[in-house]
Amino acid sequence: MPNTAAVPIAGNRFLIVGGASLVGSATAAELLDHGAAEVALFDNFAFGSEAAIAHLKDHPRLRLIRGDVMRMADLLAATKGMAGMLQLAAFMTLSMDRDPWGGLDVNIRGVQNALEAARANAVRKVVFASSNATYGYGPGVAGDLVETTPFHSHGAPPAAIIYGASKIIGEQLCRDYHRKHGLDYVVLRYSTVYGERQHYRAANALYIIETFDKVKRGERPQVFGDGSETKHFVYVGDLARANRMAFESAASDVAVNTSGPEPITTLELVKLVTELAGGGAEPEFVGNESGKVRLTSGGAFRIVHDEAERAIGWKPLVGMREGLGRLIAWREGNEGKQA
Amino acid sequence: MPNTAAVPIAGNRFLIVGGASLVGSATAAELLDHGAAEVALFDNFAFGSEAAIAHLKDHPRLRLIRGDVMRMADLLAATKGMAGMLQLAAFMTLSMDRDPWGGLDVNIRGVQNALEAARANAVRKVVFASSNATYGYGPGVAGDLVETTPFHSHGAPPAAIIYGASKIIGEQLCRDYHRKHGLDYVVLRYSTVYGERQHYRAANALYIIETFDKVKRGERPQVFGDGSETKHFVYVGDLARANRMAFESAASDVAVNTSGPEPITTLELVKLVTELAGGGAEPEFVGNESGKVRLTSGGAFRIVHDEAERAIGWKPLVGMREGLGRLIAWREGNEGKQA
Repeated sequence: MPNTAAVPIAGNRFLIVGGASLVGSATAAELLDHGAAEVALFDNFAFGSEAAIAHLKDHPRLRLIRGDVMRMADLLAATKGMAGMLQLAAFMTLSMDRDPWGGLDVNIRGVQNALEAARANAVRKVVFASSNATYGYGPGVAGDLVETTPFHSHGAPPAAIIYGASKIIGEQLCRDYHRKHGLDYVVLRYSTVYGERQHYRAANALYIIETFDKVKRGERPQVFGDGSETKHFVYVGDLARANRMAFESAASDVAVNTSGPEPITTLELVKLVTELAGGGAEPEFVGNESGKVRLTSGGAFRIVHDEAERAIGWKPLVGMREGLGRLIAWREGNEGKQA
Repeated sequence: MPNTAAVPIAGNRFLIVGGASLVGSATAAELLDHGAAEVALFDNFAFGSEAAIAHLKDHPRLRLIRGDVMRMADLLAATKGMAGMLQLAAFMTLSMDRDPWGGLDVNIRGVQNALEAARANAVRKVVFASSNATYGYGPGVAGDLVETTPFHSHGAPPAAIIYGASKIIGEQLCRDYHRKHGLDYVVLRYSTVYGERQHYRAANALYIIETFDKVKRGERPQVFGDGSETKHFVYVGDLARANRMAFESAASDVAVNTSGPEPITTLELVKLVTELAGGGAEPEFVGNESGKVRLTSGGAFRIVHDEAERAIGWKPLVGMREGLGRLIAWREGNEGKQA
């Protein structure tokens, strides 16, 4: 056995837990394109959808497993013979707010179950989808966000803090399995994902779709506050590549940021979406809506992805103009199919 | 009904979850002394001990309930008719390291169960025992630690980070129950507790006992590193008073630090314990032991308790010299009874 945590894609089998999703389907395609012997998408379809994987489901090397991260038996069966496991299954902030019982089950015990199954079946490497939510929210989140940046939570909504802390715990469960059982892993801290087959459950990514829909209806898009608030998105294809490279690299026991090339202000984002939608009215500046979970940052920030380049050789390739163009082209071609 | 979250002690019934403990028994005595109609100690005796409550168990207004925070039925039965609930049940870092499954159950789902039972039985106020572990570990933890200080975790052991993050989640579950169900609560962020009937599961408090035992055996006490590392303890009687005042105060929906009057360096602590033990050899400076979870801080820090005075009118009264004197007097009187 080589003394490295590298797991080549070609000829190996991979399990994607929470696979019937935006990132799951894109990563499945990436791994299949690189010669994976099999990619199995494990999902309970609570949030995942048949639509998200419709383009893939007849692929001869793709398998769909209906299972639940809360059932060890499902995970033990699914991990058998797998060289790598990508753990994506999670509640995000909006769903955590609606159901903190289910969210804490999935984001903590679900991760623990998945790691235990990987250990029991000697899966060679786990890639865990963490989040820049591990840096938290509010005015403290400013400047360069690097992997040692602490977790700021003062004043943020409970569900957002619970989500961020659940991801911190998920990362540490990976570290604990590495220390106690030698399980190799890479944690990728995703920033907000957008792209083709965009889902409707991430508070920040949803904003792109809402803005686009308003412009297409001839309405003025809305900017909350003065529009100077920073967002830092990452294109789904870049993340699929990051997941693949995390398996392939010799790196283990490391957590790195995977963000897009550059942050964007809310106002720039709205203007860009409006332009790519074919033009429209000037944005309307509005106060914060009540009753809606919005995740605000204080000062300008930038998620630094240098460490990902050092650890797994990855950097983002798709900027906001190109990525949003692809999302919008998909959306325009698929609008009739949306619920 | 008065429009205040104040719950007077006299004539009311209180439940202490995780009650067969250092803080639980001291708080029970405090509430009974202030006229509580009943204090019920709820414990599964996984960590709690009969010894910790031996001095109380024949008290006519004290009741002992064998129950588990993982069983809703136990909690629903126990919370019935209670005006206040103190939630203490938790795994600390050392036990979290040994059993992260049990620790995450108790520290997260257990808190959720206790809050749900309190809501279902209309308990008027919950006091939740959080920790200064919500500020984390390592070099980032320096200077004045106030309630808005972020959570630093880089480089700390997995179990310590999991413990701190589990307390952050526990606090947010309280906030969530307040927002969604109007449940009044006060979070107290305890620093490391010491005092009579000291238990043997807190990494930092254990150091006091270990040092005392070495001195009594005529050995040189050990100082890890150069002895400049900060510790900030709180005397158990001060915490019992803080718990009582949190119930009595009109405050709700707030989290405050409850620490001792002043921090102490490791070297000062060892010298003070040696002096109070009747003198002994000079301390030995040693490197960090391998294989043992030790929680180190970086620079000097001080836990600021001003906010507790504003919110619940509390400040610590017992300094290290007095509190250690009481612990040692108890220890010398009880040495034969220790396991």
